[in-house]
Amino acid sequence: MRLSQMLLVTLREDPAEAEIPSHKLLLRAGYIRRVASGVYAYLPLMWRVLQKVSQIVREEMDAAGAQECLLPQMQPAELWQESGRWDTYTKAEGIMFSLVDRQGRSMGLGPTHEEVITAIARDMIRSYRQLPVNLYQIQTKFRDEIRPRFGLMRGREFIMKDAYSFDADEAGMKATYEKMNQAYHNILRRSGLAFRAVDADSGAIGGSGSQEFMVLAEAGEDEILYTEDGKYAANVEKAIALPTEVEASPFTTAEKRETPGTETIAKLCEFLNCSPTAIVKNVLYQAVYDSGRTVLVLVSIRGDQDVNEVKLQNELVKLAGNYGGSTVIGLTVPDATAQAQWAAKPLPLGYMAPNLSDSYIKPPKPAPVESKAAGMVAPKFLRMVDKTAVDLKNFVTGADEAGYHQVGANWGAEFTLPELVVDMRKAIAGDRAIHDPVQRLQTARGIEIGHIFQLGTKYSTALGATYTNEQGEEKPLVMGCYGVGVSRLAQSAVEQSHDKDGIVWSPAIAPYHAIVVIPNMADAEQVQAAETLYADLNQAGIETLLDDRNERAGVKFKDADLIGIPYRIVTGKSLKNGKVEVVKRATHDVQELAIADVVSTLKQWLIEATR
Amino acid sequence: MRLSQMLLVTLREDPAEAEIPSHKLLLRAGYIRRVASGVYAYLPLMWRVLQKVSQIVREEMDAAGAQECLLPQMQPAELWQESGRWDTYTKAEGIMFSLVDRQGRSMGLGPTHEEVITAIARDMIRSYRQLPVNLYQIQTKFRDEIRPRFGLMRGREFIMKDAYSFDADEAGMKATYEKMNQAYHNILRRSGLAFRAVDADSGAIGGSGSQEFMVLAEAGEDEILYTEDGKYAANVEKAIALPTEVEASPFTTAEKRETPGTETIAKLCEFLNCSPTAIVKNVLYQAVYDSGRTVLVLVSIRGDQDVNEVKLQNELVKLAGNYGGSTVIGLTVPDATAQAQWAAKPLPLGYMAPNLSDSYIKPPKPAPVESKAAGMVAPKFLRMVDKTAVDLKNFVTGADEAGYHQVGANWGAEFTLPELVVDMRKAIAGDRAIHDPVQRLQTARGIEIGHIFQLGTKYSTALGATYTNEQGEEKPLVMGCYGVGVSRLAQSAVEQSHDKDGIVWSPAIAPYHAIVVIPNMADAEQVQAAETLYADLNQAGIETLLDDRNERAGVKFKDADLIGIPYRIVTGKSLKNGKVEVVKRATHDVQELAIADVVSTLKQWLIEATR
Repeated sequence: MRLSQMLLVTLREDPAEAEIPSHKLLLRAGYIRRVASGVYAYLPLMWRVLQKVSQIVREEMDAAGAQECLLPQMQPAELWQESGRWDTYTKAEGIMFSLVDRQGRSMGLGPTHEEVITAIARDMIRSYRQLPVNLYQIQTKFRDEIRPRFGLMRGREFIMKDAYSFDADEAGMKATYEKMNQAYHNILRRSGLAFRAVDADSGAIGGSGSQEFMVLAEAGEDEILYTEDGKYAANVEKAIALPTEVEASPFTTAEKRETPGTETIAKLCEFLNCSPTAIVKNVLYQAVYDSGRTVLVLVSIRGDQDVNEVKLQNELVKLAGNYGGSTVIGLTVPDATAQAQWAAKPLPLGYMAPNLSDSYIKPPKPAPVESKAAGMVAPKFLRMVDKTAVDLKNFVTGADEAGYHQVGANWGAEFTLPELVVDMRKAIAGDRAIHDPVQRLQTARGIEIGHIFQLGTKYSTALGATYTNEQGEEKPLVMGCYGVGVSRLAQSAVEQSHDKDGIVWSPAIAPYHAIVVIPNMADAEQVQAAETLYADLNQAGIETLLDDRNERAGVKFKDADLIGIPYRIVTGKSLKNGKVEVVKRATHDVQELAIADVVSTLKQWLIEATR
Repeated sequence: MRLSQMLLVTLREDPAEAEIPSHKLLLRAGYIRRVASGVYAYLPLMWRVLQKVSQIVREEMDAAGAQECLLPQMQPAELWQESGRWDTYTKAEGIMFSLVDRQGRSMGLGPTHEEVITAIARDMIRSYRQLPVNLYQIQTKFRDEIRPRFGLMRGREFIMKDAYSFDADEAGMKATYEKMNQAYHNILRRSGLAFRAVDADSGAIGGSGSQEFMVLAEAGEDEILYTEDGKYAANVEKAIALPTEVEASPFTTAEKRETPGTETIAKLCEFLNCSPTAIVKNVLYQAVYDSGRTVLVLVSIRGDQDVNEVKLQNELVKLAGNYGGSTVIGLTVPDATAQAQWAAKPLPLGYMAPNLSDSYIKPPKPAPVESKAAGMVAPKFLRMVDKTAVDLKNFVTGADEAGYHQVGANWGAEFTLPELVVDMRKAIAGDRAIHDPVQRLQTARGIEIGHIFQLGTKYSTALGATYTNEQGEEKPLVMGCYGVGVSRLAQSAVEQSHDKDGIVWSPAIAPYHAIVVIPNMADAEQVQAAETLYADLNQAGIETLLDDRNERAGVKFKDADLIGIPYRIVTGKSLKNGKVEVVKRATHDVQELAIADVVSTLKQWLIEATR
């Protein structure tokens, strides 16, 4: 492609709308243009990158035995009602765009395709002889993000590859999952990315186990905890680890102490001269279920630990049935305004005890008209205790009275241990690893570009997608699902690989491999040499641009650096010696090559770079 | 691909939902599955066909200098309000799906992309030196069809290639248009389709000229009129021709005659013993503008002619400004119920005159509260005369009184010629061609799979997309747009090419080129020979399936015919002579080939078939 004929518009200034380097660079280098919040046009250079990534994905999926198809983006509400996700996706979390067609039927715009593919499997799969099947598609998906940002990282319209596998049993599903795990490793490696596969929370998709693929980058929205030995890595949302050791409590007798001004753990430790590991901290949350029910949750946890709200949310979802709902749509630490809605009297904040009285919650109003609304707040606290607080002896905790704490307390004596004992602690850097307590957790930031799930029978059971096994029994299909963000992967490559001059593409996903720059268009010799090289390189399968614009050499070099083409060939001064200057974008290494050697040298470099 | 590992489910019975052969066959052969009305999943075989078609489109677009990109499907309402199409597309015609996001902003799902691309051009194109530019994308589009049907032919979600060109002037745009015209011819020829390029109505897209590409097929929704010499072809909506000659009126004196029971032209001709060419027929239409205004339109046309409602609609759109609107959203012949809404007294149906009194329309009600609604019907008839009726002398027409006609009438004497003289006649088979009256129009049915438009400056002016020309003047970009229905093309190929046994794909767009069928899986020699051929064929770039299912040979042959793979290779009885049976799907020609010759022979056939 000749730049003179290409719609390439580069910007010298950082666009105001962009916050992170990759977003700025993709805008500046003319790869994307914003059309609406979280909605971008992919211009020709970007489209080539997306095609390259898609092709790598396609090859690895095909090699792993998956078959490509294309499912509808517009999905009937009925299918999502069958799986029970319609309300959650369109109303509660509200991340699915929905519309009503001219016949008055509700349709959603697919953020994911479990329902559609399961309905197709229900229709087409009858027998174990048809299994396993793994279908994938590469397609634009939609999410009505609360806060679209960072360009293609968190857009409302984005390209994904999603695959769905159907197996006869758990073992088959796990074998398919392992193939996908390998395919994902291959995809990321071939794309030239530094990444880490981590244990992950399965969130709204569900299932029994899942793994995320994280491209390592400072601007990543996710925190990863990992061990140096490479044996453990997890999203902080999911991470588990051994907390630091408990220091024995200095208190041996149970008593109530006046502890003024000790609303925080730090102040309390200082005042009582004790370790935070000797304290039971009681944290109040307010959960709202999709049934409309509000539940006040009191979490007791060791004083030096924090609550992992994703884990807490998962525990609360499990209890949804108790509150007439199926999921949690809001989880917050209630502020003064929120407290005023349901508190019968001021709470002893900073001094709350595990047995905080239920009388702090206003009783339901007796008036029949208002009873429905009033009854929406559960009249008792939901009490949970984190595992870190269970074995504490002689601990310190709130005395339920402002300015007072209880010291030397014990479960089964001063306080009743809540029935719900769960793991809710947030693992942090420095924690000891479970597989080897000598290893300490390290922290890194990552961009989630892939997520693979062991779904199990969640959707096949809900939609009645069964098959007949060898014994003639009807069984639900055992599913897995596997997603990779194609457009997000492309931008994360830029986030991971750029410098002050612009993007540094890996040759595997660069829009073009090489660019031939003519410094002076008025110099016939330069033009002639460049035209020949341009033709020869493309002929040899090296995708090459020709900068034949009537621009100064400096502008051309700046643009070539900005758009990040791996190899730049300049038909400049060394032409008189039968040579051209060849610059590697990543390192700025410059070398002079004989014109006759350019094609073979670049071919060799490309083989090495995309191996 | 091995059929044993592919999700191939074929049906023996025609599915109830399908009306035309191609739709039935795509369902039966396991290419597509319906997910909602007008919304289909493309299963792996279909996806391969769509990829083949897309690749042909891509190659021809690239060769014609266009650049591929991808534009958003979700488009902000603001852009469509700038072009003035938001209300028409979402409310009036209502073919654009729209939704409101969580921020309360309205978005449309792109049925077409003039607005988005023009906004991008406005942002990026500054100078004539950047021109011409032609951008295209291959993408899923959405239309809220009133009556989705015929599978992929008229779906609500479908794949299109759309291109948009920007030139400095009309001449440049016409040159680009001509390149696209050629590219479209190439696409259809390479896809193996019998087709015709025809003059077309530009409809809601607008612009000065357009051409449709019609795949010829009995089930086509469009009628084409063309001449044997190949010099003229048009969609009937747009077609022009010379009407048959006028036969002189037998009446020389103007008088009113009693003509009982002559409500139709045929009865009137018989009663008066005159030619229908001597009659002026007056047809009443009811048009509704997007302003809400209803206008009663009286069209006078020669008795043997019919009104082309597309042409009439176009004329009425031109007059929209007179009625406070910008387009026509409804055009019907008012029935008795409709007439009752606005008629002050019964109309002399079958006997209406060109000067039908405006007093037939109820006057607006005086009450101020109701005046707005009442005033929504224009108080006077909009009178138009078709060119065929202008030169008639001594004609017959209604006398505005049931049971009476006027004979020997003349414009300027008994009746005033309406000011609006327009071409509204419907050309029909048998009409004489304008370019050569010896040629008579022939008729054929077609499936519109492409439409190219000379848009001009309609969108660039509306959205302010300008450039600076060589003289430093700011000028609007001159645009063209070019669409081809990728999924529709694929189905139309089936509609054009099938037989009683199934689909007959052209090798250029077949999902696979060849299928190796093992008649008896228990015969190790058959399996061995098939496996070797399967590997060798794929190795040679001949995309080959292997039917290694545990099914009877008859089932395998039936499935191979149904899915329509061009070449079937059977490792059967002739193996003992070192031969296999090779069957051409299109002709059912059977020949025995030495195993060693199979690859080279098929390679040769494919070269010939896709040349």
